Amino acid sequence: MQKYRLFAPGPVPVPEEVSLQMARPIIHHRTKAFEAVVAQVKEDLKWLYQTQKDVITLASSGTGAMESAITNTLNAGDKVIVVDGGKFGERWWKIAQAYGLEVDILKVEWGNPVDPKEVEKKLAQGGYKAVLVQASESSTGTYHPIEELAKLTRNREDCLLIVDAISALGAVNLPFDAWGIDIMVAGSQKALALPPGLAFIALSDKAWKMAESCKTKKFYFDLKREKKNLEQNTTAFTPAITLVIGLAESLKSMKKEGLENLFARHARLAKATQEAMKALGLKLYSKSPVNSLTAACVPEGIDGGKVTKLMESKFNMTIAGGQDAAKGKIFRIAHLGYFDDLDIVTVVAAIEGTLAELGYKFEMGQGVGAAMKVLWGK
Amino acid sequence: MQKYRLFAPGPVPVPEEVSLQMARPIIHHRTKAFEAVVAQVKEDLKWLYQTQKDVITLASSGTGAMESAITNTLNAGDKVIVVDGGKFGERWWKIAQAYGLEVDILKVEWGNPVDPKEVEKKLAQGGYKAVLVQASESSTGTYHPIEELAKLTRNREDCLLIVDAISALGAVNLPFDAWGIDIMVAGSQKALALPPGLAFIALSDKAWKMAESCKTKKFYFDLKREKKNLEQNTTAFTPAITLVIGLAESLKSMKKEGLENLFARHARLAKATQEAMKALGLKLYSKSPVNSLTAACVPEGIDGGKVTKLMESKFNMTIAGGQDAAKGKIFRIAHLGYFDDLDIVTVVAAIEGTLAELGYKFEMGQGVGAAMKVLWGK
Repeated sequence: MQKYRLFAPGPVPVPEEVSLQMARPIIHHRTKAFEAVVAQVKEDLKWLYQTQKDVITLASSGTGAMESAITNTLNAGDKVIVVDGGKFGERWWKIAQAYGLEVDILKVEWGNPVDPKEVEKKLAQGGYKAVLVQASESSTGTYHPIEELAKLTRNREDCLLIVDAISALGAVNLPFDAWGIDIMVAGSQKALALPPGLAFIALSDKAWKMAESCKTKKFYFDLKREKKNLEQNTTAFTPAITLVIGLAESLKSMKKEGLENLFARHARLAKATQEAMKALGLKLYSKSPVNSLTAACVPEGIDGGKVTKLMESKFNMTIAGGQDAAKGKIFRIAHLGYFDDLDIVTVVAAIEGTLAELGYKFEMGQGVGAAMKVLWGK
Repeated sequence: MQKYRLFAPGPVPVPEEVSLQMARPIIHHRTKAFEAVVAQVKEDLKWLYQTQKDVITLASSGTGAMESAITNTLNAGDKVIVVDGGKFGERWWKIAQAYGLEVDILKVEWGNPVDPKEVEKKLAQGGYKAVLVQASESSTGTYHPIEELAKLTRNREDCLLIVDAISALGAVNLPFDAWGIDIMVAGSQKALALPPGLAFIALSDKAWKMAESCKTKKFYFDLKREKKNLEQNTTAFTPAITLVIGLAESLKSMKKEGLENLFARHARLAKATQEAMKALGLKLYSKSPVNSLTAACVPEGIDGGKVTKLMESKFNMTIAGGQDAAKGKIFRIAHLGYFDDLDIVTVVAAIEGTLAELGYKFEMGQGVGAAMKVLWGK
């Protein structure tokens, strides 16, 4: 007997009580009962986004919301800066190019955060309509300095800061209004601990103003239409009803935990994992590790692909490997969502067991011990 | 104590065993286990579509797949015929107009099927790139003659038949290959008896050829990218994992029932409901009733809005009312999906109880009796 354990940075485990809520008999979406759910979710998403603006829920993966950020505010030919420090940075410019934007790619070495000065230099040239960036670049486990970037854009009347917070919202502090973020995108299968299928997006006044004059063609992802519907506690098209029911449940438990505790828990689990990796002699891949996940470098002489495969066969556990530039070089462990202290002990123990079997020399238990010291040490 | 009963034409009830499958611990989508699910679903959707072509699954509502049908094959300025006989005909031209197509709206009186001769006359003028139509116009309960329309388009090299089969697939016979349909769109929350959140689309060789030269901008709904991924039993973006797991379960039970039995069941339930309405002295709203749902006219002097409201308060049952042109004039009862004979007896009984309370004079039990004669009479 071996339980299945999921430690990839999304999708993450769904709490049993949320799964059971979603398994209840389906209700129709054009009813008072479902409108009440939408109204509740609307308020709770504002709380999670730390904003007074409406947060729109879409039936799509996070990429759909990323696309909507671009197609609702920007036009073909518009000059934008895309911070590309990994797979998801790449996604921003692929979407932007698909819509004919003039993309200035600010290439950042994988594992590094963007230097705000580089962005500032570019912005000084003028003419940019947006800066597109990840809060958490999950392919490298890196946090980009969103607060500093927002300082560069928030006083420019015609330039938006568009943040992909898919693997960050709920795990790290991203106060939308206070920092002056213009657009922030999130997804259900990360810190919200839901199955994938929902995406979220909020727009600042500046972004809504640009939406007014935006000419890019769209229909399903027309955010103005969704906003009007959301004001009536409904959606333009049939919502993913069961996932929205789960969302209400998930937000309820997040509110119970509280924003500060939520961020502190993610920080603690990340710190414990980081210390465990160091105690095992492994380097962290990121120079600016995000609290959503930890990317660790595979020791010299060991094939990273074997680590994830052996985790699967030996422990029935899914973690993530590296992609593209990091392929075979790293493995990635999630902290975001439904994870607690003992989960970190579990995943570190499995990593130790796996590395030992692959011939890596270390004192068994050292990683787990280091994690436990962070979690419960005095 | 009063159970909640859902009889609206989508979303429809989800079988308990499907809900429980979806409530199982989530698995990661980049795993052999999930790829096996995608491979199975791919084969079973071909069976349901009656096609050799790949059927693509999207994480969106049905409208997303409708949009993708247009944005992947047609260009701004292309002339298309849209059959508009209800709310969903209207949706076709709204999407088409949003993308700058030149739309020739073939207005059909609500409740009527389109006359293929009208389409033929227009096509004879030449220059049309597509005919867009519903198989089941669920706002009126009407079946449009898809086979006849396909005869008009399938030998034209440069004109597609694009069918919205969202509330039809699995309820009525729509053999994609045999009839020569070019694009067919469906959704999860109808005859597939799943929660909303998935949409489906298949393209003929002719449609894929037009996709090759299509210039319309898109990203999330880029079907060529999805097709390439589907060939590897995966998806371009994070799929709605739990819904896809449910889809596998739902298709399994549909295959067990068999296509002929599936269509025969829907036909029998529709016939029973139609006869029940007639026995109560109610007219059918559609001149070409579809087997997915029945739209009945509210008796003279009774406000249709009161029927649906009283069904809710007296029986805790959701049926659908009329929209726009049919507002207050009709109510609509679903047969599509997870409904059996006794469900029809149940909904007809509730309608009788409701009409009686609203002062309509008839012999109580007459509707139910007529339904039972169709279901079990000799």
